[in-house]
Amino acid sequence: MSELTHFDETGASRMVDVSAKAITARRALAEAVVEMQPATLELIRDRKHAKGDVFEVARLAGIQAAKMTSQLIPLCHVLPLDGAAVRFEVLDATRLRIETEVKVTAKTGVEMEALTAASVAALTVYDMCKAVDREMTIASVRLLEKEGGRSGHFIRPT
Amino acid sequence: MSELTHFDETGASRMVDVSAKAITARRALAEAVVEMQPATLELIRDRKHAKGDVFEVARLAGIQAAKMTSQLIPLCHVLPLDGAAVRFEVLDATRLRIETEVKVTAKTGVEMEALTAASVAALTVYDMCKAVDREMTIASVRLLEKEGGRSGHFIRPT
Amino acid sequence: MSELTHFDETGASRMVDVSAKAITARRALAEAVVEMQPATLELIRDRKHAKGDVFEVARLAGIQAAKMTSQLIPLCHVLPLDGAAVRFEVLDATRLRIETEVKVTAKTGVEMEALTAASVAALTVYDMCKAVDREMTIASVRLLEKEGGRSGHFIRPT
Amino acid sequence: MSELTHFDETGASRMVDVSAKAITARRALAEAVVEMQPATLELIRDRKHAKGDVFEVARLAGIQAAKMTSQLIPLCHVLPLDGAAVRFEVLDATRLRIETEVKVTAKTGVEMEALTAASVAALTVYDMCKAVDREMTIASVRLLEKEGGRSGHFIRPT
Amino acid sequence: MSELTHFDETGASRMVDVSAKAITARRALAEAVVEMQPATLELIRDRKHAKGDVFEVARLAGIQAAKMTSQLIPLCHVLPLDGAAVRFEVLDATRLRIETEVKVTAKTGVEMEALTAASVAALTVYDMCKAVDREMTIASVRLLEKEGGRSGHFIRPT
Amino acid sequence: MSELTHFDETGASRMVDVSAKAITARRALAEAVVEMQPATLELIRDRKHAKGDVFEVARLAGIQAAKMTSQLIPLCHVLPLDGAAVRFEVLDATRLRIETEVKVTAKTGVEMEALTAASVAALTVYDMCKAVDREMTIASVRLLEKEGGRSGHFIRPT
Repeated sequence: MSELTHFDETGASRMVDVSAKAITARRALAEAVVEMQPATLELIRDRKHAKGDVFEVARLAGIQAAKMTSQLIPLCHVLPLDGAAVRFEVLDATRLRIETEVKVTAKTGVEMEALTAASVAALTVYDMCKAVDREMTIASVRLLEKEGGRSGHFIRPT
Repeated sequence: MSELTHFDETGASRMVDVSAKAITARRALAEAVVEMQPATLELIRDRKHAKGDVFEVARLAGIQAAKMTSQLIPLCHVLPLDGAAVRFEVLDATRLRIETEVKVTAKTGVEMEALTAASVAALTVYDMCKAVDREMTIASVRLLEKEGGRSGHFIRPT
Repeated sequence: MSELTHFDETGASRMVDVSAKAITARRALAEAVVEMQPATLELIRDRKHAKGDVFEVARLAGIQAAKMTSQLIPLCHVLPLDGAAVRFEVLDATRLRIETEVKVTAKTGVEMEALTAASVAALTVYDMCKAVDREMTIASVRLLEKEGGRSGHFIRPT
Repeated sequence: MSELTHFDETGASRMVDVSAKAITARRALAEAVVEMQPATLELIRDRKHAKGDVFEVARLAGIQAAKMTSQLIPLCHVLPLDGAAVRFEVLDATRLRIETEVKVTAKTGVEMEALTAASVAALTVYDMCKAVDREMTIASVRLLEKEGGRSGHFIRPT
Repeated sequence: MSELTHFDETGASRMVDVSAKAITARRALAEAVVEMQPATLELIRDRKHAKGDVFEVARLAGIQAAKMTSQLIPLCHVLPLDGAAVRFEVLDATRLRIETEVKVTAKTGVEMEALTAASVAALTVYDMCKAVDREMTIASVRLLEKEGGRSGHFIRPT
Repeated sequence: MSELTHFDETGASRMVDVSAKAITARRALAEAVVEMQPATLELIRDRKHAKGDVFEVARLAGIQAAKMTSQLIPLCHVLPLDGAAVRFEVLDATRLRIETEVKVTAKTGVEMEALTAASVAALTVYDMCKAVDREMTIASVRLLEKEGGRSGHFIRPT
């Protein structure tokens, strides 16, 4: 099995040197699923009901987090993102799906930016609703798609 | 059902006013579970094998994230934490469990700090291993326990 | 005239030593007024019209900025705020008023936090609308009221 | 009237996707005017008098704020600035003018960076002088000029 | 020899739990010495000569760094500082001494805040002068004094 | 002697305008030396002994600090680094050497990033060991080498 690239031959962590890599357009798509009580999901799905828009707060938190990824993940590169979007979808009575899409023109990809945006958006949903449903679970955070760069186009098998 | 406290009566978001609340000792325990290929987990469980300590990098990222929670979660209060710890446990051939514990002496609790630490530690594990296993999933992020404050002692039912 | 407290006797800047001051409940109220074209204000005053809630984005930016004040204003103290709120009021066809209220229990006041929140909320309104109205002006940012601490209760004369 | 570009067709906020835009040299010029008591302005206009250089503190705060704009304004892109300058001009006995100039070679402009620098420099002047003049007002923050990019050369009409 | 407190019994790093410690007034004094060419020191010791005040820029950088210590040093606690000061002294023709003093009322001390302020002030002097003297050396960064807390009053032996 | 480029002709500080400079590959190498008691160095040189890896914590702190340089050093540009590495070497019984290497493809160099990484890694070693050796000294922080850009290849004379 290949070695982990974030360590050098002595086991020391490092920010991988990408100086020789080409600048290309890159895109990543990730998701998070939040499970909650039906009453909680009902409360937030219609902003008039809750008298406040949980999705918009979580969306902005996710976008801001995408921009802060290199401060959060120790070996990530600082990337001047081309764009970031966070979308919400109610899957069924208890599950909210958050999809994030991040783009950059750079030497490395934006998987971590998309995953961080999804995680922080999900955490923000938790924060907004924890007073009414403390047992909410962020059930799944994962990479869906990744485009651009030497490793080619990845689409997660379903 | 009660309203969401992060909105006022008009639906505007706000950082809840805690000026009248008592300062008490508070503690929160959270977890994240990361699912991966058996070969990936084998690679990281023994730092000599991988020639680098994935757990230590993730642990530091989680602790730093706990301290940055109020910058990530829009309506969280800035809290001078008393301590933060991140622990790892290999559950079985494909699942790594991350447990976080955060303490504070303050007017509000540290659930979000513990959950954020768990999420960012899990994201860091993903980042360190994504070159060998892109389909890793952060399968569950949730609050386990919460102590201190008016709402009493919460232990998540199993 | 009294000297400026942020300089010592040699003219060197400093973060004023507040170690001997008492911890008291403090509150500050500030405002910013944004002037724009009538069509711009009409566009944002009803979120259904603009298909997006400019006020909510600006509100969250203001609250986050209140928490970041000590990183922005060089000689400000780091303060664990008790609460922060940002409110909008349409004054007339061309003027939007933003009012901020910040509370803390600490040795120093939160004027700068309230003023920073108002400024950043106003800048965010500008950012959201600059594509349609580049000549918007942040016409007035000022302290309205300040309570707590040795200097007593200040209310800006009208 | 055109829609606000920071929202998508459903009204969700987003960081606008600039991946297809050209990288060009861009520049923005902004200003803030601070009104104060004549005695306050006299105190700070000559740094020997005040035994401390209010302008230099405010200038550095403005430059640092230009670099932090993407953390403050939720939907702004992270931009690696080419340069930033903050200049002061005493307009008359009660008004101090702050002019900021920011440059970048990027896909989006730096209006927000110039406006943020002007606002934070003005807030810092307030902070340095608030002990002697609590009623200071940031009377006007606005964009003066903007160059580079598809929208052409904008000069604010006087 | 005693174990390192930032690791637990398994060797995992942690932010030490200070929840049971008493809140006391604490103070730390640190220094950095910067060695440079005589012409460089001459250039900066009189701000009129250099047409710019290197000391003031470095001083503000040091104060800001003291406030950011917990973001820089992974296992440091977030501390709401009571005050911070940075002082300069020309020791002889080639050596500049920077002394920092930081105060807090908290459960842990501010040695790291004082040392970080001294280091960043010294780095800023380097940055300001590197165009004329690339071989400047930060020759000594060390703790001079520490007061408050269980470990008593420490004064570095000379 | 040439003037300091971080000030304009009036002595005002500024972030130097690099818009006309060419983008080139740049690299900087810096070092810090930490002096300590022989028993302290013995304790940390073998991570099994100390039951914890001081070097890995310091290495990650240094890498993170390289990414944060523009927030710490007031007039530094924001640079999207290509890579960063931190290496440790035990020089003798009392001296630990930290070497940092930073790369970027940009209009300005990364001396400050390399020096900041070295300083913060050294400060982190101090933090981890201060409970057993409060008199540790960061004995020397300096630039070793600098490549790329108009000023040519600099190697510090030994």
